[in-house]
Amino acid sequence: MDKNPLVSIIMGSISDLPIMEKAAKFLDTMEVPFEMNALSAHRTPAEVERFARGAQERGIKVIIAGAGMAAALPGVIAAMTPVPVIGVPISSTLEGRDALLSIVQMPPGIAVATVGIDAGLNAGVLATQIISLGDEAVSKRFEDYRRRLADKIVKVNAELKEVKYKFKTN
Amino acid sequence: MDKNPLVSIIMGSISDLPIMEKAAKFLDTMEVPFEMNALSAHRTPAEVERFARGAQERGIKVIIAGAGMAAALPGVIAAMTPVPVIGVPISSTLEGRDALLSIVQMPPGIAVATVGIDAGLNAGVLATQIISLGDEAVSKRFEDYRRRLADKIVKVNAELKEVKYKFKTN
Amino acid sequence: MDKNPLVSIIMGSISDLPIMEKAAKFLDTMEVPFEMNALSAHRTPAEVERFARGAQERGIKVIIAGAGMAAALPGVIAAMTPVPVIGVPISSTLEGRDALLSIVQMPPGIAVATVGIDAGLNAGVLATQIISLGDEAVSKRFEDYRRRLADKIVKVNAELKEVKYKFKTN
Amino acid sequence: MDKNPLVSIIMGSISDLPIMEKAAKFLDTMEVPFEMNALSAHRTPAEVERFARGAQERGIKVIIAGAGMAAALPGVIAAMTPVPVIGVPISSTLEGRDALLSIVQMPPGIAVATVGIDAGLNAGVLATQIISLGDEAVSKRFEDYRRRLADKIVKVNAELKEVKYKFKTN
Amino acid sequence: MDKNPLVSIIMGSISDLPIMEKAAKFLDTMEVPFEMNALSAHRTPAEVERFARGAQERGIKVIIAGAGMAAALPGVIAAMTPVPVIGVPISSTLEGRDALLSIVQMPPGIAVATVGIDAGLNAGVLATQIISLGDEAVSKRFEDYRRRLADKIVKVNAELKEVKYKFKTN
Amino acid sequence: MDKNPLVSIIMGSISDLPIMEKAAKFLDTMEVPFEMNALSAHRTPAEVERFARGAQERGIKVIIAGAGMAAALPGVIAAMTPVPVIGVPISSTLEGRDALLSIVQMPPGIAVATVGIDAGLNAGVLATQIISLGDEAVSKRFEDYRRRLADKIVKVNAELKEVKYKFKTN
Amino acid sequence: MDKNPLVSIIMGSISDLPIMEKAAKFLDTMEVPFEMNALSAHRTPAEVERFARGAQERGIKVIIAGAGMAAALPGVIAAMTPVPVIGVPISSTLEGRDALLSIVQMPPGIAVATVGIDAGLNAGVLATQIISLGDEAVSKRFEDYRRRLADKIVKVNAELKEVKYKFKTN
Amino acid sequence: MDKNPLVSIIMGSISDLPIMEKAAKFLDTMEVPFEMNALSAHRTPAEVERFARGAQERGIKVIIAGAGMAAALPGVIAAMTPVPVIGVPISSTLEGRDALLSIVQMPPGIAVATVGIDAGLNAGVLATQIISLGDEAVSKRFEDYRRRLADKIVKVNAELKEVKYKFKTN
Repeated sequence: MDKNPLVSIIMGSISDLPIMEKAAKFLDTMEVPFEMNALSAHRTPAEVERFARGAQERGIKVIIAGAGMAAALPGVIAAMTPVPVIGVPISSTLEGRDALLSIVQMPPGIAVATVGIDAGLNAGVLATQIISLGDEAVSKRFEDYRRRLADKIVKVNAELKEVKYKFKTN
Repeated sequence: MDKNPLVSIIMGSISDLPIMEKAAKFLDTMEVPFEMNALSAHRTPAEVERFARGAQERGIKVIIAGAGMAAALPGVIAAMTPVPVIGVPISSTLEGRDALLSIVQMPPGIAVATVGIDAGLNAGVLATQIISLGDEAVSKRFEDYRRRLADKIVKVNAELKEVKYKFKTN
Repeated sequence: MDKNPLVSIIMGSISDLPIMEKAAKFLDTMEVPFEMNALSAHRTPAEVERFARGAQERGIKVIIAGAGMAAALPGVIAAMTPVPVIGVPISSTLEGRDALLSIVQMPPGIAVATVGIDAGLNAGVLATQIISLGDEAVSKRFEDYRRRLADKIVKVNAELKEVKYKFKTN
Repeated sequence: MDKNPLVSIIMGSISDLPIMEKAAKFLDTMEVPFEMNALSAHRTPAEVERFARGAQERGIKVIIAGAGMAAALPGVIAAMTPVPVIGVPISSTLEGRDALLSIVQMPPGIAVATVGIDAGLNAGVLATQIISLGDEAVSKRFEDYRRRLADKIVKVNAELKEVKYKFKTN
Repeated sequence: MDKNPLVSIIMGSISDLPIMEKAAKFLDTMEVPFEMNALSAHRTPAEVERFARGAQERGIKVIIAGAGMAAALPGVIAAMTPVPVIGVPISSTLEGRDALLSIVQMPPGIAVATVGIDAGLNAGVLATQIISLGDEAVSKRFEDYRRRLADKIVKVNAELKEVKYKFKTN
Repeated sequence: MDKNPLVSIIMGSISDLPIMEKAAKFLDTMEVPFEMNALSAHRTPAEVERFARGAQERGIKVIIAGAGMAAALPGVIAAMTPVPVIGVPISSTLEGRDALLSIVQMPPGIAVATVGIDAGLNAGVLATQIISLGDEAVSKRFEDYRRRLADKIVKVNAELKEVKYKFKTN
Repeated sequence: MDKNPLVSIIMGSISDLPIMEKAAKFLDTMEVPFEMNALSAHRTPAEVERFARGAQERGIKVIIAGAGMAAALPGVIAAMTPVPVIGVPISSTLEGRDALLSIVQMPPGIAVATVGIDAGLNAGVLATQIISLGDEAVSKRFEDYRRRLADKIVKVNAELKEVKYKFKTN
Repeated sequence: MDKNPLVSIIMGSISDLPIMEKAAKFLDTMEVPFEMNALSAHRTPAEVERFARGAQERGIKVIIAGAGMAAALPGVIAAMTPVPVIGVPISSTLEGRDALLSIVQMPPGIAVATVGIDAGLNAGVLATQIISLGDEAVSKRFEDYRRRLADKIVKVNAELKEVKYKFKTN
C-alpha cells in the first residue's frame, strides 16, 4: 500500500541521482515515505513553482533539494513554501564550492538547511530527525541507526589493535 | 508565565551574541519559546555533553548552535542528540570560511543544518519552519512574516521608480 | 517625453542601488532608455516571473540583474526569457565570490553574461554594446566614450612624467 | 552558399577546441553563421589587433573568445572593438579559477560577458540571444530550443518515478 | 615484551589508516612505543572522552589525531587533556582544506599542533621530537634519521649531474 | 635571578611583536623561562643558522617561530635543529592564508607544529604543554589555567540567562 | 643631466602610483635611471604596443608593469618585447588574488617575472639585480642595501631583549 | 668542450625533475650553458648556503629554483645571493597554490621572480631573456623562438578553417 510522502527529494539533473539516492535509501531504511522529482530552477521554473506552492498542502513535511554549480534550486523552492528545505550542494565543477556557496549564502528571511558537498546521506539523516519530532516510531528507528553507527567504530577499533601488533616496538 | 523552551540557542563565546541574538529576536517575534546558553566544545566539553544528552527529554525540538573558527560545537552537539541542530558559522577570521567548512562538512551519519555565514536570523527562520510543522499558530505567524518580507521589496520598487526620473533619458 | 525602455535594470535589494546606479548613469549618458526595478528571486518570486515573462513583449532588449550572496536572480530571470541577461555579482560577504560563482556557473542551456564583482558600470557598457548593434546613434556615442577613456590614460601619462622628475637620478 | 559570419569564435590555443566547438555546434543548430579562429593575446598580438579592429566592419555582431590560465584574450579583444565579446574561461590549471578571474574582473569601461568555466555551449546560447534581437528566424529557433530543454527535464522526472518504486516504503 | 605506549595514534575512520600508518611506521623505526585507536568525535563522543581523560594517567606523552572534512577530533581531544595533541588534516573533499581549517583554527586556550595535509609521517616526526626531549636514545635515533634525509638529497644531486650531460650545450 | 630559557620565541619582523607577545605573556604566567629574538630566514640567514644549530645545546626545549607572507622561518629553523618548532602564521596579506600554507605544508621529514593564524597565545599554550611533560610544577599551573578557561564560559552562561529575560516570550 | 632610462615602470592606472612609486624610489636609491608611464592593455592598446615594440631599441633593459584585477598589462607587454618584464599584482578587489593569477599564470613561451601582491619595492629590487649583472657600480650599491637590511633586524633583536626583561620569569 | 654554466637550475626533490627539465631543455635549445642541482632548504640547508654564497663568484647569472608545498627554497637562495632567482611553484598538493604563495609572497627587500605553477619552460624563457641582455647571440636565438611560437598559432588557425566547413551553416 502506498503511503503519502512526507519528504520530497528534488534534483536539478538526472546526473545528481547517485548522490540524491543516498537520501532516498536512508529514508527508506527509516520507513519515512518519500517521493523523488527532477526539477530545474533554470529549465523548468514553472514546474518548480507548481511543486513548491503545493508541497505543504500535499502533506510534505521536508523538502530535500540537490543541485550543482550555480545551484539556485534549493533557495528558489525555499522562497515559495514554508516547508523546511534541506539543500545538498553537488560537486561537478570547482569541487562543489560553487554549489555550496550558491545554496548556503541565502539572503535574510529565506533559509536553506545546507548539508555538506555531495552529502546526500546526511540530507536523509536531517530529514529523518525533523520527521522524528512528530513520529515516535521513526524516532526509535533513528536512535537504533545512531547506535549502529557508533558500533561500527568500535569494531574498527578492535581491528586496529591487530594492525598494531605487526609493528616492531609494540 | 514562563513557557518551556522549544528552541535552544547555543553559542561558543559571548562575542557571538550579536549574531545569535538575531535568531533569538526572530523566535521572540514568532512567539516560539527559547533559551540561550554559552557552551564551548573546546572549553566546556562536559557541559556540552550534559546539555546535548538532556535536550530531547527537556522538550527541546531544535538546537541552534553558532561558532567561529574551527567551529566544532554544532557537530559535537549533533553527535550527542537526535534533536535537529542548525549551525551558524560565525566570521572572525578568514571571513568565516573556516567556520563554514568546520560546520557544514560533517561525516556521513551526523548532519548539521548549516545556514550562511553570520546568518543568525536565518537560523531563527529555519527553526521556526521546523516548529511550524507541529504548531498551527506559529505556522500562521510565519506566513505573515513571509508576506511582509515580499511587501518590503514592493515598496522599494516604488521608490526606485522615483530615482529613475532623475535621469536625463527617461 | 518618455521613451520606451530598452534596458531593464533589476536589483535584488535596495542596498544594491549604489552599484546598479552606475549602470543606469552610463545608459543615461549613452541616451539608452532604461527602467529600474527591485525584485528578489527569493522574496518576490511571482513578481520576478511576471517581469521576466513580459520583458520581450514590452520591447526590453537587455536585462541587467545585480544580486549578492546566493545570487539566484540573474539566472532565474535568464531561465524565463530569451532576452539576454547581464549579471552583476554584488559583494557583501566573502568579497563577492559567493555572488560571482552563483551568477556565472550556470547550467548548460541557460546563460548569464557575467561582469566583474560590483562592476555596475561595465554592465551598462555591455548593454550599450548590445543595443549599439541595432542603433547607429548609440553606436556613435559609445565610440566617443571609448576615445575619452583612452584620452584619460594619456593625460595621466603626462602627469607621471612630472612625478619622475622629483627623483634624484632622472 | 556561404553566408557572411555574424559570430566569430576565437580560441587561444588548439587545445581549447573541444570546449569552443560546443559554441560552434550550438550556433550551427541555430543556423547562425559563424567563423572560427585561433589567436593568442600573448603569441600573436598583431593578429589579434588586426582581427579585433576589423571585426565590426566585416559584419561580426558577437565575438566569443575562450582562453585558459592568465586569459587575456577576451579582454584584449574587447578593448579593441565595440562588438560585444563573450568570454569563456577554460580550465587547465587551478580548475579554471585563474581563467575565470582573468576574464571577468575587467577594469571599468571595458566589459567582457563572461560565462561559466568551460561553458562553451552557454557562450553559443548567449551569442544566439544577442543575434535574436535583430533576427526573427533565429529568435524562433531559440525559443524551440528552450522548450526542448524543459521537455528533457520532464522526461527525466517521469523516469525518476520509476526508480522510486524500487524502494521499500513507497 | 610489550612496552607501555608513549604515543597514541587516533583516527576518525578506518579509511584514514593509510595516512596514519605513516606516523606509526616512523615511531616504530624510532622505537617509540605507540598504540592505535579509531575514535570519532561525532560517532563515539563518549569513547573519545574516556580516552582523552585517561591519556595522561596511562603515561601517554603525545597524541596524534587524524581526521577529515569537519575534522573536530583533534580539537575535541585537545580540550579534554593536557597532553599535547598533533593534528593531521586528511584530504577527502576540497583537497583537505576543510580538514586543515577545522584542525588548525582553534580558539584561544586550546591548541592543536597541526601538520600538513595527509602528513602522517610528519606527525610521527614531531611526536618523536617531543619524546626526544626526555629520552636520550630516541634523540640519537632521530638525529641519525635527519642525517639520512640529507644524504638522500646528496645522492639525488649526483644523479642529476648525469642527466645534465645528455644535453647539448653542457 | 635569571633562569635559563626553555622556550625561544622568534619573530621574522618587529611588526610581529603584538602577536608573539601573547605567547611570551602566557609563558610568563606559567613561569616558563623564555627568550625572544628577531631573526629572518630571508634577511639574516646566517643568524638563523647560528641560532638554530645552538638551540639544543643551550637547553632550549621548544622554539616558537612566527612569520608572515612567504613564511619560511619556522620551516628553516625546524630543518636545522631537533628541537620541536611551533609555527605561528601571521596575517598581513591574504588574511594570513599565505603564511599558513607556507608554514604547515612542510615536506616529509621536517615538521612544524602549526597553530592558527595570529594564534600567538596558542603557541604559548602548546609550548607549555610540551614543557609540562617533564615539569610537574608547570603541569599544575597549566591545569589551573584550563579550569579558569572553563569557568569563564560558565560565567558568560549565567549572564546570557539575564539577556534572555528581556525577550517577550520567555 | 638626464641619463637614458634602463628600467621602464608602467602602470595600468594612476591609482597604482603609490605601489609603483616604491619601485621608482628603490631604483632612485640604487642610481638606476628609469622612466614612468601609464598605459592600459585595455584602454590604450595601441600605446602599449608602440611602447613594447620600441623598448629594446631605446635601451630599456627591464620593464616593471603593475596592474590590478584582470591584470593583462604585464603579459601583453611581455608578448611584444624580448626585454624581461617584472609583473606587480595590485590589490583592489579579492585581495589581489585576481591580479596575481592574471599575471603569473602565463601560457608556455611568454613569461612574466611576478613579485608579490602590491610588492612594488621588490619589483625595484629584482630590476636592480638584473641591471647589476652588467653594472659593477649598481652591484656594489645593491650589496650595501642588503647589508643594511640585515642590520635592521639585528637592531630590532637588541630592542627585543629589552622587552623581555619586563616579564616576570626572565 | 664544457662551457661554464650561466644558469643554475635547482630543485628541492628529484620528483620535480619532469618540470625543471623543461627549463633545462629550453636553455639547451638557446645554447645557454647551465647546471642542475638538487638542494633542499629543509633537508640540506648547509648545501643550500654553500651553493648560494658561491653562485655569483662562479659566474652564475641566473638561478632557477623549483619547489613544491611550503616552497622555501627559492626565497632562501634569493636571501643569500645578489644573483636574480626565478622561482617555479611545483604542484603536488592544493594544486600548487601552497607553493605559489610560498614563493611569490616574499618580504620587502628579497625578491623572487615567480613564474606560473609547474611553468618550468617559462622559467627557462625568463632566464634566457635575462642572459640575452648581455649576449647578442642568445638574443638572436630567442627572437627566432618567439617567431616560431607565433607561426604555430598561424598554422593552427589554418587548420581551424577546415574544421569550420564541417558545420551545416557555413
